[in-house]
Amino acid sequence: MNRIYNFSAGPAILPVDVLKEAANEMLDYQGSGMSVMEMSHRSKIYENIIDEAEKDLRDLLHIPDNYHVLFLQGGATLQFSMVPMNLLKNGKADYINTGVWTKKAIEEARKYGDIHVVTSSEDKMFSYIPDLSNLPIREDADYVYMCDNNTIYGTKIKTLPNTKGKVLVSDASSCFLSEPMDVSKYGVIFAGAQKNVGPAGTVIVIIRDDLVRKDIDPKTPIMLRYDIHVENKSMYNTPPTYGIYLCGKVFKWLKKIGGIDAIHQINVQKANLLYDYIDQSKMFFGTVDKNSRSLMNVCFKTGSAELDDLFVKEAKANGYDNLKGHRSTGGMRASIYNAMPIDGVKALVEFMNAFEKKHG
Amino acid sequence: MNRIYNFSAGPAILPVDVLKEAANEMLDYQGSGMSVMEMSHRSKIYENIIDEAEKDLRDLLHIPDNYHVLFLQGGATLQFSMVPMNLLKNGKADYINTGVWTKKAIEEARKYGDIHVVTSSEDKMFSYIPDLSNLPIREDADYVYMCDNNTIYGTKIKTLPNTKGKVLVSDASSCFLSEPMDVSKYGVIFAGAQKNVGPAGTVIVIIRDDLVRKDIDPKTPIMLRYDIHVENKSMYNTPPTYGIYLCGKVFKWLKKIGGIDAIHQINVQKANLLYDYIDQSKMFFGTVDKNSRSLMNVCFKTGSAELDDLFVKEAKANGYDNLKGHRSTGGMRASIYNAMPIDGVKALVEFMNAFEKKHG
Repeated sequence: MNRIYNFSAGPAILPVDVLKEAANEMLDYQGSGMSVMEMSHRSKIYENIIDEAEKDLRDLLHIPDNYHVLFLQGGATLQFSMVPMNLLKNGKADYINTGVWTKKAIEEARKYGDIHVVTSSEDKMFSYIPDLSNLPIREDADYVYMCDNNTIYGTKIKTLPNTKGKVLVSDASSCFLSEPMDVSKYGVIFAGAQKNVGPAGTVIVIIRDDLVRKDIDPKTPIMLRYDIHVENKSMYNTPPTYGIYLCGKVFKWLKKIGGIDAIHQINVQKANLLYDYIDQSKMFFGTVDKNSRSLMNVCFKTGSAELDDLFVKEAKANGYDNLKGHRSTGGMRASIYNAMPIDGVKALVEFMNAFEKKHG
Repeated sequence: MNRIYNFSAGPAILPVDVLKEAANEMLDYQGSGMSVMEMSHRSKIYENIIDEAEKDLRDLLHIPDNYHVLFLQGGATLQFSMVPMNLLKNGKADYINTGVWTKKAIEEARKYGDIHVVTSSEDKMFSYIPDLSNLPIREDADYVYMCDNNTIYGTKIKTLPNTKGKVLVSDASSCFLSEPMDVSKYGVIFAGAQKNVGPAGTVIVIIRDDLVRKDIDPKTPIMLRYDIHVENKSMYNTPPTYGIYLCGKVFKWLKKIGGIDAIHQINVQKANLLYDYIDQSKMFFGTVDKNSRSLMNVCFKTGSAELDDLFVKEAKANGYDNLKGHRSTGGMRASIYNAMPIDGVKALVEFMNAFEKKHG
C-alpha cells in the first residue's frame, strides 16, 4: 500500500484510520454478518449508526435542541433549490456573491423569488471577501445567503454578516467542522460531505425548527421539502446509508483527537506553514487578500503559466497530487482539509522550497 | 468473519467478491495512493471508473445508442417527481397501480398533471398483476407508467402493458438486471441501486434521447432536469462517486458469471426452489397470484401471526436474517436478489422444512 499526499479540493482526503476501519468492517460489521451497505435502513443496527452519527455531530458543534440535523442527497447544489423553495415567504432574499457557487445559488433562487445581490467580489475575480458589516438588507427579506468558504478561490468569511435580524443561510461545504461555529447564529447551515466529512452523495443540513414549514408551494417535489425529511428523520426514502456511516466515523475520529477546537488549532498550524512559506517566497505568491485567506484551500501562483504547469507535474511525480488550481483561476491550489496530516503540509513546503531553488 | 444469509428487501445483499475487492482497494485504488472516495470526480482515474461502469451496463442490457445512462441521486422517489416534471407535455399520463410505490408515484405526479389510474390491483391488497393487454390509455397521454417488480408484495409484471403506442416508463428498482429486458420497448427505466446493484444513494436512469427535453417548466429545480444531467454526463455536480464505483464492480461480476441470461437462469432456479417447497408445504403458503410471482421477492405466510413471528425469530437465530414481511402485508418475505447464492436458498428451504416438522 502506497498512500500519496492528496490535495484534492473534493471529493477529498479522508482520515486513514477511518478508511482502515471501513475496510475491516466491509464484509462483517461488528459481528452482524453483513456490510453496512447491505443493511436495511429500517433495522435497529442501522438506526444506531445514523442516530450515533447525529449525536456525535451535535456534540462536536454544540448544536442547540431547536435545530434539526438531516442527512440528505443531491449535494449542496440541490440545497440551492431547497433553500428558496422552503424559506421564501415574502418572496425576497438577499445574497452575498463571493464566487461561482454563490452565483449558481443566486441563479437557482431567482426561479422562485426576487433575489438581490447585496454585495459581490466579482470585480476582482472573487479574490477577497467584501465588508459585510452594513449591507443593504431589505426589511422584508426572508433570509440572507452566504458561502462560508470559497473552495475555488481560497477565501473565507471571517466575520459573519450583519443580517439586520434576518435569517442567515450558509453553504459551509468546504469548511464544515474545520473550526468552531456558533450554530445559533444561523437559520440553515448545509455542507456537502465530500470536502471535509465523508464520501460524495451525502449533504448535511442543520435547520432551525421554526424554518421547517408546511405552508410552502404544494407543487414542491416531496424530496425537496424540509418538513418531510424532518418528520421522517432523514428516512423518507432510503438515505445514502454507507455515506452516513462514514460521516459518523469521521465524527468519532474528530472527537477522539479533541473535537473542533483541537482540529482548528491543527488547521491554523497547517495553513500558517504554507502561507508563511508562500509569503517569503520569491517564486510563489498567494492569490487572495490576506484577510480573506481560507484555512482549507490555499491558492498560489508563480506568475508564469508554464512554471505553474511544471510545478503541478513535478509535484505529482513526487507524490503530491491534485495541486492544479480550478480551471477558472489557473495556478495552484492545495486543499488541506481536516484529514490532511501536518506532515503532508510540511512535506509540500519542503518540496516547494526545493522546486524554487531548482527553477528560481 | 461470519457472513449470514441476508434476505433483506433493500438495501440488500451484495456479492462477496465485490465487497472483498472494495475492502482491498479501500486505502489504495490500483496504485493511485487514494481511496476511490477520495478522488476528484473530474480526475482521469475516476472518469475511467464511471465510463467503464456505463459501458459494462450498456453491454449487459444491450442498451441502444439512442438511450442515455445516468447515475443520479435521490433514489427512485426523486424519479417520481422527475418523470412527470420532464415528460409531461400534454399534461396527461396514465398510471398502472400495483402497490405502495406506484401509489406514491401517482400522488407525486398529480402535482404536475392530470393523472389517470388505468388499472389497479388494490382491490386484493396488490396480490396480483392486472391484465395489461387492453388498458384505457388516453389518446393524448404523454406516457404510461408501471412498476416492474413490487418489492413489498412479491409481484412482477410478466408481459409488458400494451401502451397503444405511448411512451412506457418503468420503475425497475427491485428487478433491475435480474432478467433480460428489451430496453428499446421503454422510454425511461429507472432503478434505485440498493436492491440489486449497489449501495443506497445511487439511482440509475436509462432514458431515450427524444425524451430529454429543454422546453420544460423553467422553474424546475436544476438537479431535477434530465437535460442537465445528460449534457453533463451525470457530473453536473459531484455524483455519488463511491456508489457508482461499486455498481461498476457489480456489473463486472455479472459479466463474469455470464451476463443477464446466466443470472436469470440462476434466479429462476432459486425462486423455483422456494416456490416449489411452499406450494407442497402444509404450513406455508404463497400470498400472491401464481402468475404474478416475483423472482426477487418471495412472500409467504403460515396463516398464524404468532407462528409467523416465531418463524422469523428462529430463522434469525439460525443465520437467516431479514425475513419479516413488510409491515403493510405481515407474514414473511425472502428477497433473493442476484447476489443471494443458491446455497442460501437451499439452506432456507431446509430450515423451513425443519421448522414445519417441528411446529407443524
